[in-house]
Amino acid sequence: MNTTIKSLNWRYAAKRMNGKTVPAEKLENILEAIRLTATSNGLQPFTILVIEDQEMREKLHATAVKQPQVIEGSHLLVFAAWKNITAEQIDTYFDLVYEERGMEKGALDQYATFLKDHFSKQTAPEIFNWASKQAYIALGSALVAAAEEQVDSTPMEGFNPAEVDRILGLTEKGMGSSALLSLGFRDEQADHLVNAKKIRRSKEELFVKI
Amino acid sequence: MNTTIKSLNWRYAAKRMNGKTVPAEKLENILEAIRLTATSNGLQPFTILVIEDQEMREKLHATAVKQPQVIEGSHLLVFAAWKNITAEQIDTYFDLVYEERGMEKGALDQYATFLKDHFSKQTAPEIFNWASKQAYIALGSALVAAAEEQVDSTPMEGFNPAEVDRILGLTEKGMGSSALLSLGFRDEQADHLVNAKKIRRSKEELFVKI
Repeated sequence: MNTTIKSLNWRYAAKRMNGKTVPAEKLENILEAIRLTATSNGLQPFTILVIEDQEMREKLHATAVKQPQVIEGSHLLVFAAWKNITAEQIDTYFDLVYEERGMEKGALDQYATFLKDHFSKQTAPEIFNWASKQAYIALGSALVAAAEEQVDSTPMEGFNPAEVDRILGLTEKGMGSSALLSLGFRDEQADHLVNAKKIRRSKEELFVKI
Repeated sequence: MNTTIKSLNWRYAAKRMNGKTVPAEKLENILEAIRLTATSNGLQPFTILVIEDQEMREKLHATAVKQPQVIEGSHLLVFAAWKNITAEQIDTYFDLVYEERGMEKGALDQYATFLKDHFSKQTAPEIFNWASKQAYIALGSALVAAAEEQVDSTPMEGFNPAEVDRILGLTEKGMGSSALLSLGFRDEQADHLVNAKKIRRSKEELFVKI
């Protein structure tokens, strides 16, 4: 069977976790899957905060309707999407392309200029919205990679973004919190959903074949 | 090695495809990964159009800056996000939960009422934006699943959404096109990026550990 399907069938959004720590190697694999994820024009317009610190997770717990996973997991990922794409950031990206691919500097100037022009015409909310969507592609990879490592992962949108941004100092860095992802291990005793059947629309309802 | 990492390292956004058809079993595995993807509250607020029809793909090709993959791949997926979440849709979802989990009808009425109230206060653009993000989680799963099947996949945002919506009749169904995904096989001769090194920010730049 396709491993992705197997992984997605194994996982569910654990509501309770047992406090055990995700081993470093498993965590690094999940992060690497995020890093390798495709994004629009390759720009990766987000920063991922990987929070293990207990005190910080307790602060964030209060802003996330006290969802237990935030403190019962061992790591909380905050997907922080960028609110601006500056000309400097685009230059940095293309410098990396030139270096990694052994290309002549400036070879993709036309493309770089197109991107600079494109983003200069967009508002911060428009860029944040676009960048959040890119972060969600990475969230998709993270869920698959975590399940393959038999690590439970619970994505959360139920939090106060302004509060999370304030606590983590994201606003002054030109970012905003877009999604949270708790990583840990399911508490088989406490979580009433541990054996619940997965609910998904049928193929016939989800797909239209043309 | 974690299969997800292996898959993501194998894949790249093929710019040219060779016209060969993705076998039915591989396609079904990619679609199943999309179907099993986690979404906020489990609502799966999107419909996926799976377009094999050549004539239809030629029409869409013209709206997507004539990116060759649209016609050189064998299937084009259109991720259509919903612009509204009606009380009826929420009832349908909970009816499915009750049926699949053998629960008493109405057992989750409080939760259903909360969701109905939440969505009734949101504008169509707000819901579309949120639904698009959910679709992008599924896009993330699709990229991993396709690579595992050694199927090339090219996600595209470079298209005219209003035109795509018109051609596919999405507006009258309360949906809008959010992303395209071409599925097929790389053309190793024609695609100048086939051996290009993958460009990604380093771990040190992408992740902030706290």
